[in-house]
Amino acid sequence: MKKFINHVDDFLTESLAGFAAAHSDLVVLNQEPVFVRRKTPKPGKVALVSGGGSGHEPLHSGFVGYGMLDAACPGQVFTSPTPDQMMAAAQAVDTGAGTLFIVKNYSGDLMNFEMASEMSEVPNAMVLINDDVAVENSSYTTGRRGVAGAVIVEKLVGSLAESGADLEQCKAFGDRINKNTASMGVAFSSCTVPAAGTLTFKIGDDEIEVGVGIHGEPGRRRARFAAADAIAGELLTAIVADLKPRTGSELLVLINGLGGTPLGELYLLFNSTRLWLQQRELKIARAQVGSLTTSLEMAGASITLCVMEDDMTRHWDSPVHTPSLRWGI
Amino acid sequence: MKKFINHVDDFLTESLAGFAAAHSDLVVLNQEPVFVRRKTPKPGKVALVSGGGSGHEPLHSGFVGYGMLDAACPGQVFTSPTPDQMMAAAQAVDTGAGTLFIVKNYSGDLMNFEMASEMSEVPNAMVLINDDVAVENSSYTTGRRGVAGAVIVEKLVGSLAESGADLEQCKAFGDRINKNTASMGVAFSSCTVPAAGTLTFKIGDDEIEVGVGIHGEPGRRRARFAAADAIAGELLTAIVADLKPRTGSELLVLINGLGGTPLGELYLLFNSTRLWLQQRELKIARAQVGSLTTSLEMAGASITLCVMEDDMTRHWDSPVHTPSLRWGI
Repeated sequence: MKKFINHVDDFLTESLAGFAAAHSDLVVLNQEPVFVRRKTPKPGKVALVSGGGSGHEPLHSGFVGYGMLDAACPGQVFTSPTPDQMMAAAQAVDTGAGTLFIVKNYSGDLMNFEMASEMSEVPNAMVLINDDVAVENSSYTTGRRGVAGAVIVEKLVGSLAESGADLEQCKAFGDRINKNTASMGVAFSSCTVPAAGTLTFKIGDDEIEVGVGIHGEPGRRRARFAAADAIAGELLTAIVADLKPRTGSELLVLINGLGGTPLGELYLLFNSTRLWLQQRELKIARAQVGSLTTSLEMAGASITLCVMEDDMTRHWDSPVHTPSLRWGI
Repeated sequence: MKKFINHVDDFLTESLAGFAAAHSDLVVLNQEPVFVRRKTPKPGKVALVSGGGSGHEPLHSGFVGYGMLDAACPGQVFTSPTPDQMMAAAQAVDTGAGTLFIVKNYSGDLMNFEMASEMSEVPNAMVLINDDVAVENSSYTTGRRGVAGAVIVEKLVGSLAESGADLEQCKAFGDRINKNTASMGVAFSSCTVPAAGTLTFKIGDDEIEVGVGIHGEPGRRRARFAAADAIAGELLTAIVADLKPRTGSELLVLINGLGGTPLGELYLLFNSTRLWLQQRELKIARAQVGSLTTSLEMAGASITLCVMEDDMTRHWDSPVHTPSLRWGI
């Protein structure tokens, strides 16, 4: 295992210390329990709190700031954060309008966020993200997994919250975005969790894992390596079969690298995606290409489509200022 | 070789087509000869034109837009672009104030940019970037290589050009920034050039290449894998020995991923860097952490320090709006 690391036990602590120091204008790192919060809370705004296992950076800590999250609770690598982190984060960023917990659907995350929700003294609600169409149940999941769709939910609900919406409105908007969003990924390589020190799964030189999860969980099938157009076609067919967008629908397309795939390949995958959608008279309203929801150094990518209805495009375009997503400010 | 690719010969074309479609609000892709140009030129502004082999994305095409480059000329992967690309790009973005060519020091790039400079009808000057302190001469270089320092030169000179400076001022500022900038990298893995289909170099499971070039060229030494603090210390010692910053100097620190290293590790490397600099009373004025000058999917990173003098910090902070670097707009 070759990683930038000193001692396995210190990986998360030192990585977060670096993150907080690099972005001290935007975020504050709390110790015991560990969470990252927005430096300047906005009084009277619904607070958005997310979290999950580390190893998916920039998700979620990289999206703390104006127009997105108010706090993020990082667990150990690929391990759920604990209820005390979530409760402390909610308490720290509460300014009177309540907390919306944004949770990717993994059994551990959900259980802990539900516990935090019940025990928290701050009024709260929860949006559960389950955009991954690959499999119905999975290693760590009852129901579908939550993956890169989280970025879209966090951006859009973040914008709505910033505009002064109340907790109920933010929750309803989050649920609607999640319903409009579907994703599927493919892995070319495994990744290595620092504490384990060995590859999470084995994959042959000529194999790909279609529908892989962001922790290396099995997908739909182990397939022979194929051309980008064929891979994009398989992912998009599954996504569109689930979403059932009407002809002429306006889509936000997110091409998300899993960590070990260079940007040039992601743009090529976007090109394959673009041509596939064009042939089916589906319109790309907005495009985002980059590694935003990763699986450590896994090679591969996911495609996410979100059907943009009503004011979603406006909320995507609105200003955002976080370590890893920034525009308009 | 598992990559998002259809046919090896079409890799660059399809990747650029995806890039241009994803950022059609910012850039225009020219075919025959191939270059990417800023969509909305600014009349009377010195035009900044860079370029180099592909495979280093987002460098340079990802930095075309307001406040940075006016055009970028991508060659095939790890292959210099040709003089006709450079001349056509300079012609296309000229608005009367001349062109500044920003060139990383590789023999092929330099030769072709010099030819373009001589043959171009547009008045022009050149800034040569040679920030890599690892080796004096290298596989493709007479003198030191140009690496991630290019991002800093392009951002700072881009800001100066945007503010109305003339060609001579832009050239002088670029040379000064280059003089104030030093970098060194380390590789944990090789990368695979699509057209070659095999690893560029071999490296053992317990080995690292200290001082690696961004095409996988040999560095200073092949070493045993070491802790992040030790690696950071070796790179920083070499960089500081070259730059000789005065005690109390204000630095821009760029922790640059080479393509296959996840963000969480880059932040950990930033943390090691930060502590090392602190012990030597060197101040971090600005920090940038991300994969901005890559070597396809190579695992590894480089550290760049730039001594920020006079108005450099202001030019770093000024608004920029490109596909891969954006703030203030």
